[in-house]
This record gives sequence, structure tokens and C-alpha cells, in this order.
Amino acid sequence: MRFLTSGESHGPALMGILEGLPAGLPISLDYLNAHLRRRQKGHGRGRRMQIETDEVQITAGVRHGHTLGSPIGLLMPNRDWKNWEETMAAGPIEGPVKRVVTVPRPGHADLVGGIKYGHEDLRNVLERASARETAMRVALGTVARRLLEEVGIVIASRVVSIGAISDPTPMDLPVANLNQRVDDSPVRCLGSEAEAEMVAAIDAAKEVGDTLGGIVEIYADGLPIGLGTYSQWDRKLEAAIGEAFLSMNAFKGIELGLGFESARVPGSLAHDELSPGPDPIHSPRRVNYLSNRGGGIVAGMSTGQPLVLRAAMKPIATLMQPLKSVHSLSGEAVEAHIERSDTCAVPAAAVIGESLLALVLAEFVLEKFGGDSLAELLPRVALWRELNPF
Amino acid sequence: MRFLTSGESHGPALMGILEGLPAGLPISLDYLNAHLRRRQKGHGRGRRMQIETDEVQITAGVRHGHTLGSPIGLLMPNRDWKNWEETMAAGPIEGPVKRVVTVPRPGHADLVGGIKYGHEDLRNVLERASARETAMRVALGTVARRLLEEVGIVIASRVVSIGAISDPTPMDLPVANLNQRVDDSPVRCLGSEAEAEMVAAIDAAKEVGDTLGGIVEIYADGLPIGLGTYSQWDRKLEAAIGEAFLSMNAFKGIELGLGFESARVPGSLAHDELSPGPDPIHSPRRVNYLSNRGGGIVAGMSTGQPLVLRAAMKPIATLMQPLKSVHSLSGEAVEAHIERSDTCAVPAAAVIGESLLALVLAEFVLEKFGGDSLAELLPRVALWRELNPF
Amino acid sequence: MRFLTSGESHGPALMGILEGLPAGLPISLDYLNAHLRRRQKGHGRGRRMQIETDEVQITAGVRHGHTLGSPIGLLMPNRDWKNWEETMAAGPIEGPVKRVVTVPRPGHADLVGGIKYGHEDLRNVLERASARETAMRVALGTVARRLLEEVGIVIASRVVSIGAISDPTPMDLPVANLNQRVDDSPVRCLGSEAEAEMVAAIDAAKEVGDTLGGIVEIYADGLPIGLGTYSQWDRKLEAAIGEAFLSMNAFKGIELGLGFESARVPGSLAHDELSPGPDPIHSPRRVNYLSNRGGGIVAGMSTGQPLVLRAAMKPIATLMQPLKSVHSLSGEAVEAHIERSDTCAVPAAAVIGESLLALVLAEFVLEKFGGDSLAELLPRVALWRELNPF
Amino acid sequence: MRFLTSGESHGPALMGILEGLPAGLPISLDYLNAHLRRRQKGHGRGRRMQIETDEVQITAGVRHGHTLGSPIGLLMPNRDWKNWEETMAAGPIEGPVKRVVTVPRPGHADLVGGIKYGHEDLRNVLERASARETAMRVALGTVARRLLEEVGIVIASRVVSIGAISDPTPMDLPVANLNQRVDDSPVRCLGSEAEAEMVAAIDAAKEVGDTLGGIVEIYADGLPIGLGTYSQWDRKLEAAIGEAFLSMNAFKGIELGLGFESARVPGSLAHDELSPGPDPIHSPRRVNYLSNRGGGIVAGMSTGQPLVLRAAMKPIATLMQPLKSVHSLSGEAVEAHIERSDTCAVPAAAVIGESLLALVLAEFVLEKFGGDSLAELLPRVALWRELNPF
Repeated sequence: MRFLTSGESHGPALMGILEGLPAGLPISLDYLNAHLRRRQKGHGRGRRMQIETDEVQITAGVRHGHTLGSPIGLLMPNRDWKNWEETMAAGPIEGPVKRVVTVPRPGHADLVGGIKYGHEDLRNVLERASARETAMRVALGTVARRLLEEVGIVIASRVVSIGAISDPTPMDLPVANLNQRVDDSPVRCLGSEAEAEMVAAIDAAKEVGDTLGGIVEIYADGLPIGLGTYSQWDRKLEAAIGEAFLSMNAFKGIELGLGFESARVPGSLAHDELSPGPDPIHSPRRVNYLSNRGGGIVAGMSTGQPLVLRAAMKPIATLMQPLKSVHSLSGEAVEAHIERSDTCAVPAAAVIGESLLALVLAEFVLEKFGGDSLAELLPRVALWRELNPF
Repeated sequence: MRFLTSGESHGPALMGILEGLPAGLPISLDYLNAHLRRRQKGHGRGRRMQIETDEVQITAGVRHGHTLGSPIGLLMPNRDWKNWEETMAAGPIEGPVKRVVTVPRPGHADLVGGIKYGHEDLRNVLERASARETAMRVALGTVARRLLEEVGIVIASRVVSIGAISDPTPMDLPVANLNQRVDDSPVRCLGSEAEAEMVAAIDAAKEVGDTLGGIVEIYADGLPIGLGTYSQWDRKLEAAIGEAFLSMNAFKGIELGLGFESARVPGSLAHDELSPGPDPIHSPRRVNYLSNRGGGIVAGMSTGQPLVLRAAMKPIATLMQPLKSVHSLSGEAVEAHIERSDTCAVPAAAVIGESLLALVLAEFVLEKFGGDSLAELLPRVALWRELNPF
Repeated sequence: MRFLTSGESHGPALMGILEGLPAGLPISLDYLNAHLRRRQKGHGRGRRMQIETDEVQITAGVRHGHTLGSPIGLLMPNRDWKNWEETMAAGPIEGPVKRVVTVPRPGHADLVGGIKYGHEDLRNVLERASARETAMRVALGTVARRLLEEVGIVIASRVVSIGAISDPTPMDLPVANLNQRVDDSPVRCLGSEAEAEMVAAIDAAKEVGDTLGGIVEIYADGLPIGLGTYSQWDRKLEAAIGEAFLSMNAFKGIELGLGFESARVPGSLAHDELSPGPDPIHSPRRVNYLSNRGGGIVAGMSTGQPLVLRAAMKPIATLMQPLKSVHSLSGEAVEAHIERSDTCAVPAAAVIGESLLALVLAEFVLEKFGGDSLAELLPRVALWRELNPF
Repeated sequence: MRFLTSGESHGPALMGILEGLPAGLPISLDYLNAHLRRRQKGHGRGRRMQIETDEVQITAGVRHGHTLGSPIGLLMPNRDWKNWEETMAAGPIEGPVKRVVTVPRPGHADLVGGIKYGHEDLRNVLERASARETAMRVALGTVARRLLEEVGIVIASRVVSIGAISDPTPMDLPVANLNQRVDDSPVRCLGSEAEAEMVAAIDAAKEVGDTLGGIVEIYADGLPIGLGTYSQWDRKLEAAIGEAFLSMNAFKGIELGLGFESARVPGSLAHDELSPGPDPIHSPRRVNYLSNRGGGIVAGMSTGQPLVLRAAMKPIATLMQPLKSVHSLSGEAVEAHIERSDTCAVPAAAVIGESLLALVLAEFVLEKFGGDSLAELLPRVALWRELNPF
């Protein structure tokens, strides 16, 4: 399984191609668009999220509601394209280029990207470096999620902190029930007290032209034992998760299970002890874990427990109270460019994180079980679960 | 550039193949072995580190002190092989298998790996899942480091915490000077007070049969601007770093620059503001960064500032005061298997981290600059630095 | 550099994403569409080629006539989509599915693809297995060709046989002049006598409901010395060419230079001897080749001579006088399904072959020279050519 | 599944790492070495093949006769190393370098490789470009072959021509019986008349210091239906075969089934017609093929019929009656360098071709069926064969 995306933020369309999925997987536009809408929510989003409802088109790989086994093509036209047609035209234009950007925003790709690719107009950089691209990754990840559902894996997420406000509420719901609890929270937060404080913190940040980041927690449940391997460095499940999450715009850290905390406690409190399972004689390897400090992953493999990870998102780099910058043509000290933007996008980042995880897990499921059609794949997974229950 | 390793912990040898390096790179066995010895140091290591000095052999790709452009082959025979010849023989043996492992260690690959691959003898799992493999990654990473030195990039590391003990000493040395300061510290630590406390903490843990993890900080300096790209998710420099570090045995988290802390501060304190550089008129894009909160990376690219990352290592999973486990054949509750092991390997992990980073950076340098020989590569890098100084 | 395509033959659109090209490459829609039209020509094409002029849209990666360095997105809507909207709908439809295919065509993907993916309606197979996909590969390859032109590499092709008719005309034109000579030939053939015979052979085949294949010859000139390497099996230039050409629908063989003939002659007639070049003292390695039997490739690398390869295309598998087949639901002997098709597509295959070669060569140029912008790439190539002239 | 090799022809050792094979596969050194010996046979080989019997060591991934699921490491020390220790030392040497090569051999990597990597001593090139590397690919391919045997796939080969001598004998044996028939032929040839002529042709070529190439035919039988796919260009079975075979030293062409001949016949004679199978009502898709012109592959997939391919090997480039060359330091016309070599290696090339094919097929089997152990893999293949018999 692999995928590529293309598309500038204000270009005509985002495109995505995902290949390697089995044939026969039921999937609908409504399902894709529903998850895209989840990405557009959250207190603190800017105007674009309100005026535009992202909708994806399926251009390939699906027929009459089921995948064909061929590459899945997704197209997401830019609803605002009519206002950008000249600015972002692929062909030559007459007259001067509009909306040229010459002041890089600290924390954004602008300065370095302009140097790297030799662009004077930093719009040539920021259009692709924009988190707009993640809309397509959510769409592709939603296709992967559909596959995971069929094999019994669910994915969900919540926000555990925004700026200085943390939500101490423990996650004691089944993973399958989490999203319906937090999807309607303006900050995707389990605790109602923290929710109110987070909303207030966002409003306060907006008031002064500042922005906020936060920490998201992503879960997956129902993983079969033994996805991934310790055999080679880049085939470890953690490695793929690390790659996926640090490929996400504005993410600066990721941890699994206890994560950084596991570096602080002694070994006796860091690992997941075992006790005999329900039928020790006939299924001696079906054990009980006495904890899930590892976050459902050990040595490159899924343990069968819920997968738990946290990722840290830095605040959005476009501030309405602009940061100090330098004009890239004159070299003079100026205030950073302001491009339409959000105050806080952490709730959206959680949904994006779900999609990133879905893409990783689908790849590892297909690696272990193979199969060209759902009819071939599902019995293999079922048999594996039966022989190696959890 | 790509590489693979093979080898079981007590098998005849580790092997590694690294390919894609240019011809003409000077490299010596002494250089490789010196870095391998750095990996074997640190207070809290077990007996194996003391009796065995790892030494690597170059079997391919280097002639008369210079790389050939062909794949580099490294071989690291197991010095203890004579004691394991029968236990780990590739061929059939007579009589019963010795040193069979049937009790999985919590926090290790044993249980899940045995289920995944269908192994009754968990030695079939733990031999490859062992961190012994990282000796070869250090050897390969040292070859990469040699290339980086030629293009002006240096890498260093220190330990910032072991268990509950943190070293508050700020890193105010040039990166190029760090290793000579900490290489002789028993815990690879800058602060002498923290050093003493860490040593004591390791001794205390050993006393009770427990183990300790910790946090390492890795630096690289001298990166040209613009390694990596925002263009596609898996070509981002962060993504490759995330993959490499979470592929490392026992690492449970990684963060870049401010990392998780950047999720807690507002945007006005999270990004790196700019001021005009030394010659704003002729080199308007040569600016000064007023901070390095991003850790030298933005939007998938190197900024030219020092790269800074931290990774969290959980405590070693083999405890002399064993954890609760289950016998994998009888299903009975038993104490976990004890295999020769260390109390704390965090200082070694820092050195390994240097090698992981070296492998990633060498790949990105070669991607941007190409070149089949050092004579072709070096002027390209020099010209880029001249046109885009930092 | 890498690329993916998606799209069914009668689906809403083909899509393609190509990434890794440097920024600053001039490219226009007219250029892309001109090469797409070259693919649609040739005596013996069916109705679809006449009613539809393929036109591609650039959805990403190009702005105001130049590449941005971001992924290039190409979209090619199906002009006949309105007639297929229901048959090929991604969503569920009411009423029975139309144009169901249940009789596999010998020589086509139908039977095996249906079994592999579990499809009863073989349309689910043939839509993607159709050579329609090559329209997108031509579009992507034309982007690659644009890059090659900038670095001084030209690609051209001709047909050397159709069915039993061979064109004995030697290729004695400069590669750069070939296409303007054969683009207007109805069979892309240099010799006028053979041209007439080929046209007649196609007409005769059509008359009896049969089809014809043929052999195409593809050339590239201006390659710098030393693209590709002998260092590892899959980094050889030949290996990449072999992969690309045998990935082409209906191609059953490929040979380089003398090809199969080189297996028949002795070593003294199989290799390319050398004589001193124009300035033996100062440029001893600038030699003259006394022949080009190797086809411009030796040991995985370009020699600097013109690259020459031939590929064999089998006749189109859809015959109007259908072959014997078996109904895939009843198991009864029936005549194969007839889908709108051509009698001969060899001239188009030559143009497609140009694009396949362009994609391979662009990848190897970028591997050797790296570079994020044309401004960085071009001087590197120029310097290499100056130091290693040919 | 993937693999890398390293090693110079006269260096200390060849190494190979192969990963992705399931655990539990029985494999022995004897089996590996037996196939290595098959590669060393054939009339026309030089002295090296006689004095040295290649023997491989397993350094990783196999224990007590079965694979572990971890990477398989193979090591093949150079038996002649003591005579090359100084010439090929990895470290610096005292005194002048011996056996320097300064005259490139036409048809070999020498000239271009020296330019590409900046080597004055062309030994730095020819050592890796030598076909010695294929000994390791045969060893790795033999591991793959072992897996294929378990799933019911056998591979065999024969020589169909050497120089101008062709063997017209049709291949009417079961594939499983072929090798025992031709392994003892001095030219790996089915027909006894052609055999004698080929031997004579080799002797005659040797007499005059010339060399001979030839054409080999490789077969695989027992492939399940539907390995590979038409879905994306580089996932086609043909594409992988094309890549593998054109990565082979001295191979200049490859064709599948009728190959180039299929370009000459009309469609009515190029494809494989179908007739009802033994039980048309209950297994309508189990059909009979009336021919195997496609060579067991259609549209990127295995058809279930025997796979048949032919590859053309050019004559060895080192002639005892040397070709015209140019001294790479002085630029003067001289005779090409003579390095110990064979007159004809076509029979060996057939055995190597078996290994190349084994590596490709094993990869595609694992892609379709997945599985971490033989116990997981075999029932999946068996079930697929039962549902989709052939």
C-alpha cells in the first residue's frame, strides 16, 4: 500500500492516489465526506473552514460502492478557485502577479523553502507547505479506515491539552465510543471543565492575535497481535508511526504509551506484566496484560492491546499580531506576512492524526495478511484472531 | 542511500550493507572502531560490554582507505561465538536444544514475537530483537558520519536525564566540542552534580534488581539550508528522523526543538523570529534567527541552525528482580526469564542516536547534492553554502 | 522521482502524480497536449482515437508556466464520461448493471484478473487493465521529457516492423531529427516502401477481423556519461529500463543495442572498441567508440553514446473475429467479448515508449545531479559534461 | 522481501542480506552449496571456476535448519583472498599498488565506471562490476527457491543457443524434470547434437582468443493464478522480471513467451484461446488454455500456466585476443587489459537466471499471501489453489 498527494492550497484541486487496497471493500462518498467534515471542526478555526465544506470526488478505483483493486483516485476541487484562477494559474498570465508574498513567516516553510527552490515569490512555497494538504490525507486515510473497520480495528482521538490547559480526564471509554463523545465538543475534549477553559484560552489568544498548539491522543483498538516486526529497523510499527506523525505539519513530537514518562520511571514500573489468561492449559500464550504502559506496541509489533500515542502540535505560525521578520527582497526588518489562518487547529489535528494512523495500520495489516479481495483477506484475519485470541 | 543489517545477538556475526555513498571518501577501521567503543561505554553496563570489545571488519566497498562507490560491507563477528556455536547453529544439531527460553519478559519482543512467527523457543525471537543489532547500526552510521564530516556537518549527543534525575545544565558549547566533554563522563552528562546523582541512581537500581531509562539529546551542526522538503509527506526531514528514532529499541518518544513544550506556549513564543543579517542589501535572505525553538527544522527542511532532538528510552526490559510473567508452554504464572543484561544503557543510546541521525542526514545530503564521488559532491555543497550562507 | 497513476478506461478521469522534479522548469499545456496527440495517431486506430482528443489539465505543481518543486498533478477527464456515468459510477446505482462483461478475451487481463480480485463482472478488470492508462503515462513522461530537454537529452522513436513487414531502412538521422520525419507517417516508419506495405497489412488484418503487433525502436541522445551504476542490481540503468518497458501493456520483449543478436556473434563483434579521442594527452579518457553495439549502455551505465532499444508489442487482444473463449458464469464455450478497439497500435506504442524512457532517464539524471531547482541542476550537468566530454 | 549484496570480486568476501521470508522454512547449507556448484559448471569456464568451489556461510536468520523470520545473512569468503590481501586491502598499504588496471576493456564497466566514480585505477571499477557478484545472487535466490518449493513452484533452465549454434529440441519435459536432464550437459543443452556443436564452437572460440554468448530459457511451473497485478505499472510481474533480468551482467535482452515473435504473427496466432475446463458448471473459470504463447503471464499476472522466458547474454568482454582500447592515462591506442576470464559462461547464466526468477516469484508470492511463518503461509496458498485450481 502506498499513496501520494498533490495540490497547492489555492490551486484548482488536491489529488490523491492510494493503491494496494483489496477489491470488494464497501465505501461511499458520504463516508469520506463525513470524516472530512470532522477535520473542519473545532473552536478557533478561521473563515475558510466556515465558508468551504470540503467534498471529495472519487475518480478511480471504486465502482458501484466497492473498491476494484485498482488505484483509488480522489479529487478535491478548491471551492474558492474562481478567486485564485489568475494568481495560481498553471499557464502564463498577463500583467503583474498578484498576492505576491515577500515576507516569510517565522515557523513556516516560507524562508527556507524560498531559498531551497529559488523562489522569489514565497507564495510558491507556502501554497504547498500549507496544512491544506492534510485534507487529502484525511480523505485517503478514511479509505484506509474503512478497510480497518472491516477487519475489526477502530480508531479514535481526543485533545488532551491546548496551550497551557490540560484535560486530566482519564480515557476510560472503549475506543469505539470515544469519537461520538468528543466529535461535538468544540475542542474535542472529554472533560467539560477543561473544555470550557480551552475555549476561553483560544478566545483569549485570538483577542491578542496569538495562536495556540496542543497535544492530541490517538487510539486504535482491535489490532491483531503481531502487526509489524523487530526484524529490520524500517519495518517496525513504531518506525512507520514515527514517520507518519512527524510528517504532519506543525507536529514537533510523538510518544507511544507512557512515552517520555517511561524514561523517568524504573523498569519495574515501565513494562506490562503478564498473568495467566482464561484458559492457561489450552491457550498458554493467551495471557492477561496487567497494564498498557507500552501503548499497545512492543519491539516493533502490535501487542493486541489498544494502541495509544500522543503527538504535540506547535501553535499555528501565522499570527495576526505578526512576528518579527525580514523582507526577502530588501532585507529590511518588517512584520511577518499575514495569510488567512486559524487561531487553533488542534481538534482538527486529532482527526488528521486518526487518518495518519489509519494509513499506517492498513499497510501493516495488508503486509501480514496479503490478499487481493476482502473475501480473501477477512477469513485470514479471522483465522489468525481465532488461533491467537486477545 | 539505503542499508540493511542482519544478525542474531549470539549468532556468528552481525552484517551490514550500506550503499549509495560516493567514491573517494577517506575512512579507516580505527575510525569505525573508535565510535563502536563509544557505544560500549557508560555506567550500568553488564558483563558483555566489559569482556567484548566490538570490532568491525570491512568486507567491501573500501580500498586502500577510500570508498569505491560500491556497497560497503561490514562484518562484526561475535567474539563469544565459541560458547554459542551449538545453541545458535544454522544447521541441525544432535541432542536437545540448550538455553531454551519459555518465559517471556514483559516489555520485550518475546511473547508477541513468539506468537507472530510461531516460535516455541523464545530465543528465536529475542536473539534478533536484542539491541545487539544497534552495534551494526552504529558502524554503518559511522560511515555516514564520515561523509557528513567532509561536508562540514558534525553530530554529538549528551544524556539529559536518567530515571528521575535530570541534568539542568544548558547546552552552550559548540556542537563540535560536546563529545569530547561528555565522552568520558560515566553517564555522558554535562553537569557534574547530575552526573554523580545519575551514577548513584543506577547503582541503587542495580542494587534492587531494577533498571533505568532516560532521555538523550542529539545535535547536528553545519547543516546546509534546505535538506528535506515539505513537498510530500515522506520526504520531510522530520519524517525520516521520526522513522529512524522510533525504529530504535526501547525508544518510546521523540521531539524536535521545543517539542512537547511547543504545544504549551503561545505562537508568539513558539517560533523563531528573524532579524536582518549582516548584509541585508546584497544577501537579503541571509537573516539572523533570534532563537532556535524549532530545533533547526521547519516544514520538513533544515533551517541551517543546529538540529536538536530529544528521544526517550524506557528502562531495559530484563530485570534481575524479574517481573511477573507466564510460562509460554504451561500457561502458569512464573517470573520472567533473565538474560545477561545491563542496568542502564542510556549513555550508549545517545551514541546510537548519533548514528541514526547520521544515516538520515547523509541520505538527505546525497538526495540534494547527488554525486558519485567526493570530488563531485564537495564543490556542489561548497557552492550552495556560498550562495546561501548561514 | 516517482509517480503513480489512477483511472479506469471509461471512468470519470485519469489522474497522475509525479514528484521530485526541480523547481523552475518551464512547461506548458500546449507542450503536454502536443505529445498526447502524437500518441493518438497511427493507421489502424479505432473510433475512440478519432472522436476524442485527449487533453490534460495541470492541477498542481506548476504556476505561471514553471514547476514549483511540489508534486505535479495531472488530470485527464474522460470526454465520453456522460455515456458511462451510470455504468462506471463510484456510488450505488438503481437497476441492473449495464455492459457487464462475462466472456474473457484471450490475451487480456479479463480471466485472470477476475479470478484474482473476485470480480464476476470482468469490466471491473478490463477498465484498469486497458492501455488507456498509458495516456497518463505519456503525459507524465512528457513532463520528464521537458526536463531532459533542458539538460540536453532528446528522445525519439520509430516503428521497425508491423506484423511480418519490417523496415530495413537504417537509422542514420540525428536522434533530434527523427520524430519530425516519422511523426507524419501513418505507421511511424522511415522507409516509404515499408510504410506502404505496413498500411496494407493493417488494412488486410482489419478486413478479416484480426490485429497486428510490431517492434518499436526508441532512441535517446545527449546522455551524460555515467547515469546509473553497476553497484547494486536494481540501480542499473538497464534494470530500470527493463522494468519500465515490460510494465507496458502488450510488450513481450525488450533488447538493448544488438540485443538478442549480440548472443549470436562472437565477442570480437559484440563489443564497442575504442580509439584515441581528439586530444589524447589532455583528455585521455575522451575516446572514440568505433561502434555502438551496446546501445549506449554498459554495465548499468550510460556510455555517452546514443541509447538504442527495441521493444516487441504483441497484437491487440480484442479481435473483431473473436477468439475462442469460455463464459465465466456458465463455463460454456463462446466467442470472446468484443470491446471497442484498434487493429494496430504500434505507432502509438512507440510514442508511449518514448515517455517510458523519459521517465527512467529523468530519474537517473536527478539521482546523479540532485538539485532542487533548474538553476542548481543545469550548471552541475554542464560542469560534468565539460569535465567528461563526449 | 528485499535484498542487497556487497563485495568485490577479489575482496575478502561477498555478503548478502535477504529479508522478509517467513519463519519455519527448512533450509540447509548443502542445499545452498549444491546450487552454487551448478553455477560454476559449464564448458568454457576459466581456471577460477576449477580451483575454487564457492561455499556460503549462513551468518543470520537460520537456526537449527529453519528460518527465524529475521533477515538471512549469507557470507561467501573469497578462497583466493590470501593472494589479494594487499592489492584489495581496505586499509592503507605501504609501497605501490599492484595489479593496477589502466586499459579499459570494451564491453566492460571499466572506462565509464572510472569516469563516473573518478577512479584512475580501473580495478576499483571492475572488481564490483564483475559477474562474481552473481554468486551471491545465486545463493540468495536459492533461499527464495526453497520457499517456492514449499508452495509448489519449481524453476529450471536450459541453454537454447551458444553463439551461432541453436538447439531446436522442443521443451517437452515437465519443468520439474528438466534440470536433472541438463545439469550434466557441458552446455546445459537438451539436444545431444547441438550439445556437441556448442562444445566445438566454444573450443574454436577459445582457440582464437574469442568469446561466445548465447540465449537461455528459464521456466517456472506451479505458479498460483494471479501473482502480480495490472493495477500499477511497477507492480506488474513482467516489470519485476524485466528489472531482474536486465540487472544481470551481460544480459542485453529478455522476452516472455513468444516474445519478439509475437510481434510478427497476427492476433489470431498470438494469444491463448480457451476451452471449457473439466467441470464447466461448478468451476466455470477453470478453463483449459489451448496454448501458452504468453509464457504464463498476461497483463502483469501469472496465468497458472508454466512461465517461460528467454534472455540473451552477450559474449564475455574480456578477450584473450584483446580488443582495441585506449590507455586511460596516456590516451594512447593499446590492446585491452586481460583479466582472468572464461570463454563462455552461458550455462552458468542459465542457473543465475533461475535464481533471479526465484527472487522475483518469492516476492510476489509473499505479497499476495503474506504470512510470518510457513504455518501461516502454506494453508493460504493451498486454499487459493483449491478455490482457483489449474
